[in-house]
Amino acid sequence: MHFNMDEAIEVLERTQQTLEHFLAGLSEGWLQCNEGDGTWNSIEVVDHLIEGEKTNWIPRLEHILQEGCNKPFPPFDRFSHLNDKSSQSIDQKLQEFKAIRMQNINKLKSLIDPDIHLELEGSHPAFGTVKVRELLSTWVVHDLTHIAQIVRVMAERYRTDVGPWKEYLGILKRAGE
Amino acid sequence: MHFNMDEAIEVLERTQQTLEHFLAGLSEGWLQCNEGDGTWNSIEVVDHLIEGEKTNWIPRLEHILQEGCNKPFPPFDRFSHLNDKSSQSIDQKLQEFKAIRMQNINKLKSLIDPDIHLELEGSHPAFGTVKVRELLSTWVVHDLTHIAQIVRVMAERYRTDVGPWKEYLGILKRAGE
Repeated sequence: MHFNMDEAIEVLERTQQTLEHFLAGLSEGWLQCNEGDGTWNSIEVVDHLIEGEKTNWIPRLEHILQEGCNKPFPPFDRFSHLNDKSSQSIDQKLQEFKAIRMQNINKLKSLIDPDIHLELEGSHPAFGTVKVRELLSTWVVHDLTHIAQIVRVMAERYRTDVGPWKEYLGILKRAGE
Repeated sequence: MHFNMDEAIEVLERTQQTLEHFLAGLSEGWLQCNEGDGTWNSIEVVDHLIEGEKTNWIPRLEHILQEGCNKPFPPFDRFSHLNDKSSQSIDQKLQEFKAIRMQNINKLKSLIDPDIHLELEGSHPAFGTVKVRELLSTWVVHDLTHIAQIVRVMAERYRTDVGPWKEYLGILKRAGE
């Protein structure tokens, strides 16, 4: 076990600034590409991260603090952001993500004392008993998953362009290869 | 085929600033973790990126422009950075990467006219004939591979901490799972 509240916050703080420096101002070709039908482009990944800030991490944390294991979390729709028809630019979305992430980190710091709350338990609708520590670790790894997804989606765009070097580029390996 | 010189440069320019905003100031726990024996931590990945700037991309490009297919590239030692005993901090390494990457982008712009040079061919010691366009696409995807590696290595550190959520976190899936 490695979870440490300060170190977790280091990553949570960096995700929005990392994505801002990576995605802001990129050409539409990079922003709109995906891995095929039913997969997300980078803009949809940012929408999903914003949705998580609004409906997943802090609401579930508050749910555990209020309800404990008495009542399971309301289910989280991992695809709800795909209904978002907003016409915000990627730069506006990145600003929205940054603002809500900073608010949520402040909320996290005010809600959780790591000496007291990390072992508190709640009830996940699919997994059963989960701990605050596990929820917060998942928040961090969820960020890392989606940064990895964005760079993988962009790499896919050059799958043919790299010619024989494909062999050396792990990111282009598909499951089963 | 999607390669476009300006779009490729967009990514090459962003890699160093992305890594700077992601890695600078992180705790040693995040910087030193790896995926087990013989795998790289984030600092070693940055060393490898610096090494590529010095001995791989631009030198190979110049080699194609000077030699064409007459003489294969000198082989590139992908592990040479592991001999680096320098005691630079991660922040110093990130600054070094930034400086040499900016120089190399300027060199790229001065060497390559996309209307003239992209189809020029050189000889790779393992693959045989390769094109300038393929080398430049590979430079981009190589950046993306190593950003993905850094976030994957960091996610690995919380493999156990996330508890049952491991199920939903693609980044923690291992080959064969």
